[in-house]
Amino acid sequence: MSEIRAIPVEGLPELEPGDPLGELIAGAAGLEAGDVVAVAQKAVSKVEARIRRLDEVEPTARARQLATELDKDPALVQLILDESTSLIRAERGVLIAETRGGWICANAGIDSSNVPGERAVTLLPEDADASARRLREEIHGAAEVSPAVIVSDSFGRPWRLGQAEVAIGCAGLDPLDDWSGRRDRLGGELFSTAPAIADQIAGMADLARDKASGVPAVIVRGLARFVTAQDGPGAAALRRPRGDDLFR
Amino acid sequence: MSEIRAIPVEGLPELEPGDPLGELIAGAAGLEAGDVVAVAQKAVSKVEARIRRLDEVEPTARARQLATELDKDPALVQLILDESTSLIRAERGVLIAETRGGWICANAGIDSSNVPGERAVTLLPEDADASARRLREEIHGAAEVSPAVIVSDSFGRPWRLGQAEVAIGCAGLDPLDDWSGRRDRLGGELFSTAPAIADQIAGMADLARDKASGVPAVIVRGLARFVTAQDGPGAAALRRPRGDDLFR
Repeated sequence: MSEIRAIPVEGLPELEPGDPLGELIAGAAGLEAGDVVAVAQKAVSKVEARIRRLDEVEPTARARQLATELDKDPALVQLILDESTSLIRAERGVLIAETRGGWICANAGIDSSNVPGERAVTLLPEDADASARRLREEIHGAAEVSPAVIVSDSFGRPWRLGQAEVAIGCAGLDPLDDWSGRRDRLGGELFSTAPAIADQIAGMADLARDKASGVPAVIVRGLARFVTAQDGPGAAALRRPRGDDLFR
Repeated sequence: MSEIRAIPVEGLPELEPGDPLGELIAGAAGLEAGDVVAVAQKAVSKVEARIRRLDEVEPTARARQLATELDKDPALVQLILDESTSLIRAERGVLIAETRGGWICANAGIDSSNVPGERAVTLLPEDADASARRLREEIHGAAEVSPAVIVSDSFGRPWRLGQAEVAIGCAGLDPLDDWSGRRDRLGGELFSTAPAIADQIAGMADLARDKASGVPAVIVRGLARFVTAQDGPGAAALRRPRGDDLFR
């Protein structure tokens, strides 16, 4: 084993809808073969125009009622309902939903920090695995290397305080390092060991920026063993099947 | 912002109960001020003699019944019950418990991989924050630097497949980077932003080893802004209070 590094990509401009984010990253970063580029959801949502102004949302009666119960903004609750397939919890001021993309998180991933415009929020990318594939292709076109790409967001967790950054999309990466059937150093079977590589890389990248710095991309170097030529299954492979989940 | 690195500590011996783990790490690693040393739970449990042989456990009637329902080893179930204050879920072959130390995880953190001895398992350290403080003191005594210390274990998560390494103990580290009341780059309030720094460092360190390599410690460098002179609140500060948790 040798060391791994997380290197913030500095100097990217404030992003606008339609900006070629992959090209911008390729231009600002000295990318090498085997790198992983972790891109913050907010940057992806901005270039994909996944921004809404709460003043332009017309809440339904259901959203207004839920907003009253939870002491939330009715327009925000309407957007959460629009972006979700089901609500997992709606109590004590907290709204945890399963997004159309299949992620379970607070407020369906809708976020208002660092979004320019009055009462503007970002929605999650519609399909963050597709976003990661597009970014990978753009980077490859501009830089002639094909790093893995992760799109990440910070989610709260049951039982633990604080948020951890996780992968909501990826391309060119083995998201899970599945040791099923392999053996440990002493010959014992590692039957349930499967580190969530993509999530741990997302968290590592998050440590290399701070929330106010506006650095939307971080290069993680030294993990080429998880980088694949094919785009692979994406972060979809990290979704626990409903029937296998005890916490819905 | 600048880059951060994770550097595996190579060359540590197979650990035995009573071994001076902090001294061994200090001797094997070129530690610098501001480093974080992430130590795997299993290494800490070994030197603290938190090892049990399943053959020496006498299961009670309750453990035998639960074992039958879950298709688990009755001796293992007995140890899980002994190590827990409550069961969170016991169904579909899964036993998720709250440990005496306050962590919620599968099998109360009891693990059989990479443990020498027939049918031997490790228990979590009794108080992993205290373990981290002791390791920090030992390292300081041997190396004259006072790195932050994390004791980490890999836990499964609701909703997401795979495990992520998290901190079950720490000393000399701000475990949460609480942005309450601070403002984002655009002047908006970051009222619910609090990255779980200790957990993300644990995950980063996990990426720098592989499960079969036996590297029990990893140095994380470049995060001195989270390292404190005082030992601080420990990973206990990451436990979500029961009344604030929607998933028990």
